[in-house]
Amino acid sequence: TFHFKCDIQGEKKPYKDVIDVCWGDPHGAGMKPLTFVRQVLAACIYPQLLDGGNLPMDVKRRAQKLLRWCDGGSVGSYTNTGGILEIVENLAQFISQRDGVPAHPENIWIHPGSQTILTLLLSSEATPKRGVLVPVPGHSTVPLSVAALGGVAAPYFLDEERGWELRADELRRALASARGVCRPVALYVINPGNPTGHVQSRKSMEEVIRFVAENNLFLLADEVYQGSVYDANSEFVSYKKRLYELGPPLAHTLELASFHSASKGLLGECGLRGGYVELLNMDPVVMPYVERLFHLIPSPPVTGQIALELMVEPPQPGDPSYPLYMHVSPKVHRNRSSDIQSAAPMLQVLNRLPAISCQPVRGGAFAFPRLHLTTKAIRKAKDAGMQPDMFYCTKLLEDTGVFVSPGCEYGQKEGTYHIRFGFLPKHHLVRLSAFHLKFMKDLS
Amino acid sequence: TFHFKCDIQGEKKPYKDVIDVCWGDPHGAGMKPLTFVRQVLAACIYPQLLDGGNLPMDVKRRAQKLLRWCDGGSVGSYTNTGGILEIVENLAQFISQRDGVPAHPENIWIHPGSQTILTLLLSSEATPKRGVLVPVPGHSTVPLSVAALGGVAAPYFLDEERGWELRADELRRALASARGVCRPVALYVINPGNPTGHVQSRKSMEEVIRFVAENNLFLLADEVYQGSVYDANSEFVSYKKRLYELGPPLAHTLELASFHSASKGLLGECGLRGGYVELLNMDPVVMPYVERLFHLIPSPPVTGQIALELMVEPPQPGDPSYPLYMHVSPKVHRNRSSDIQSAAPMLQVLNRLPAISCQPVRGGAFAFPRLHLTTKAIRKAKDAGMQPDMFYCTKLLEDTGVFVSPGCEYGQKEGTYHIRFGFLPKHHLVRLSAFHLKFMKDLS
Repeated sequence: TFHFKCDIQGEKKPYKDVIDVCWGDPHGAGMKPLTFVRQVLAACIYPQLLDGGNLPMDVKRRAQKLLRWCDGGSVGSYTNTGGILEIVENLAQFISQRDGVPAHPENIWIHPGSQTILTLLLSSEATPKRGVLVPVPGHSTVPLSVAALGGVAAPYFLDEERGWELRADELRRALASARGVCRPVALYVINPGNPTGHVQSRKSMEEVIRFVAENNLFLLADEVYQGSVYDANSEFVSYKKRLYELGPPLAHTLELASFHSASKGLLGECGLRGGYVELLNMDPVVMPYVERLFHLIPSPPVTGQIALELMVEPPQPGDPSYPLYMHVSPKVHRNRSSDIQSAAPMLQVLNRLPAISCQPVRGGAFAFPRLHLTTKAIRKAKDAGMQPDMFYCTKLLEDTGVFVSPGCEYGQKEGTYHIRFGFLPKHHLVRLSAFHLKFMKDLS
Repeated sequence: TFHFKCDIQGEKKPYKDVIDVCWGDPHGAGMKPLTFVRQVLAACIYPQLLDGGNLPMDVKRRAQKLLRWCDGGSVGSYTNTGGILEIVENLAQFISQRDGVPAHPENIWIHPGSQTILTLLLSSEATPKRGVLVPVPGHSTVPLSVAALGGVAAPYFLDEERGWELRADELRRALASARGVCRPVALYVINPGNPTGHVQSRKSMEEVIRFVAENNLFLLADEVYQGSVYDANSEFVSYKKRLYELGPPLAHTLELASFHSASKGLLGECGLRGGYVELLNMDPVVMPYVERLFHLIPSPPVTGQIALELMVEPPQPGDPSYPLYMHVSPKVHRNRSSDIQSAAPMLQVLNRLPAISCQPVRGGAFAFPRLHLTTKAIRKAKDAGMQPDMFYCTKLLEDTGVFVSPGCEYGQKEGTYHIRFGFLPKHHLVRLSAFHLKFMKDLS
């Protein structure tokens, strides 16, 4: 992700603390890690903890099991480049249970990001250049990687007025337009949406799948917020599951890469770098090349792999850690859920302010409201050499210490301006509201 | 690194265990992690350990300090993409003290590998292709990455008869030869050598530096075994230090990237993925591009960053952990050193065997002896569809359970065959010797 941190040291500011609600970094924002997860990790790191009486028995058993899976019984050892086999098998089981469709360990790679899969799709020497259709707005990781690998990131625009829906007619327009500059080979979707908070419907997913199949594309599905859908009328459905619901021939032919991670949801362990990709319907001729590619990169960090294992194998009823886990874990959920439910009042507050409007937030971790800036504000920003929403964010940070990120980092329709933030506690919302009113008045 | 693991399950074998002496994976090979390192890591992961009385006070203080450097006080948070600033500053201090030359935090990036720097050097769209001169033998990471990035890995051969010395005349030959197929932009050196065990002399380093400067190349220095030089007459000197000894203009112009890691040496924490690169004399015009590139990749795993911090900031005299650390740490060194000193008898044993010969091992973690295979053995391998040294390794594994890797994975002069292994305990050497005698006799 792109880091943009303003240095606001120096002169005295009218606030004590900088509140960073900018990044999808739950622990950075104050969320507490799960005790079970950290106990198992600590015991794996320092196995002498297994001798004392301070850790629950199931934590010890889990740590012992995990250490048996590490060469030399140490998390300091290399693992297979695609991850520890037993953990990969448990990921396969997790996916199978989630979708009701079998998942196979040989198609799953523990791996921190999407770049390796992009390397596979984008031959830098191709003429014309290879293209990937990317959502706008969307986080910048994939477009930047595509460009770095010599490909073209071709935008399709999400429909803000319809709650940031993904529309098939826009995909067709984007594809036709992209064909003028590159040969599109893949479609990238983010569901639940980041930064939009949109959750795709089954109907929308079917349209995407048919579009991908008709145009012989590869489907890249960022599904890392699959555990973060709170809206009562929305449901996360994986692209793999949807594909199998549609049955053959689609289910057996459409090439799909689905990404998930221990960085989001209940664990929120961004710093441990645990993620995986599941590949589906890859051409068997290509698979040895995939294996070779994954061998190129170092084996993934073991602590991140353990986080993934614990994400898909939580404590079970009867385990000593179960009651605390269930106590804390729904609380974490409830906090987030109540954040989101209080996102409703929050959005009400925002939407009652002049010159700002926000679509419903149904999942993910962010709101992405639109700023309706005045001509004067836009001119003022230009004078300062900044994008208008970046100007707004900089002022907000300077005046209130609240740090949100500007829409220009995620892409937006020309002439529209947005900000992205995680869910704001009430007193931050108060600061933001007061700032917004003053900003709009001063530049009206 | 390239993993090659034979499946030897099934039929009964004349040994109980498979001894994997193939990889540079100290913990996988049975080396114990340092208590201080693991205690600090465990306390960072599970800060409740700070409340109990079981951890030394300096461990607690270190963990508390490290947690203050993490957003939200959690190792589960993202960090700057180039690593936690305070740790980067300590790396700079470590390098400054090592070399007697100032190092600057803004030139140091915590990062697991060399691929990002290669991305910088290799524009995949360049015509002619960009080339990197790579040592043969050498580990395969860089040549494979170069190829994947659309560049050409052009070999230069190390001089086996002179203890795998790097010779300037060979560099000139390799460069001229490479110019026929690509535009060479960089020279990659591995010092101390992997797999060769060679340690470069100051004279050899000067020749390399002058060659690089004369030909406008970028110098990539893999110096991850800098803590692993045991030979009494050899010394590790960093390329940066050597450059400064030679003074300006070289010291202020030669572009250098030096790699180091917590995976080797005293810590041997491969699984935590902690490494860094220091860049020197980069064109200021290029630096924003470098920053952008590092922003493309996710922030490095926090546990690996902590391992780096502890590598460069060990316990000091007076700290409660100091006595144990000094007790264990020279022991680890001594073990390895005695392994190497017993590498002398080991090499004597090997060199007394027929049809095998090994150059002195002065540093690193491997021996790379040459096999003088018979025509019959080579034919037999071809019949089996294998490289001759791969055939030897496969047979060795099948017959004895000792797992070494074949020279063909590292590159070698045509018609020569080698094996690579970490230092063998005596009883493994006995197995290897017996196998070797039988193999050579059967195929004489």
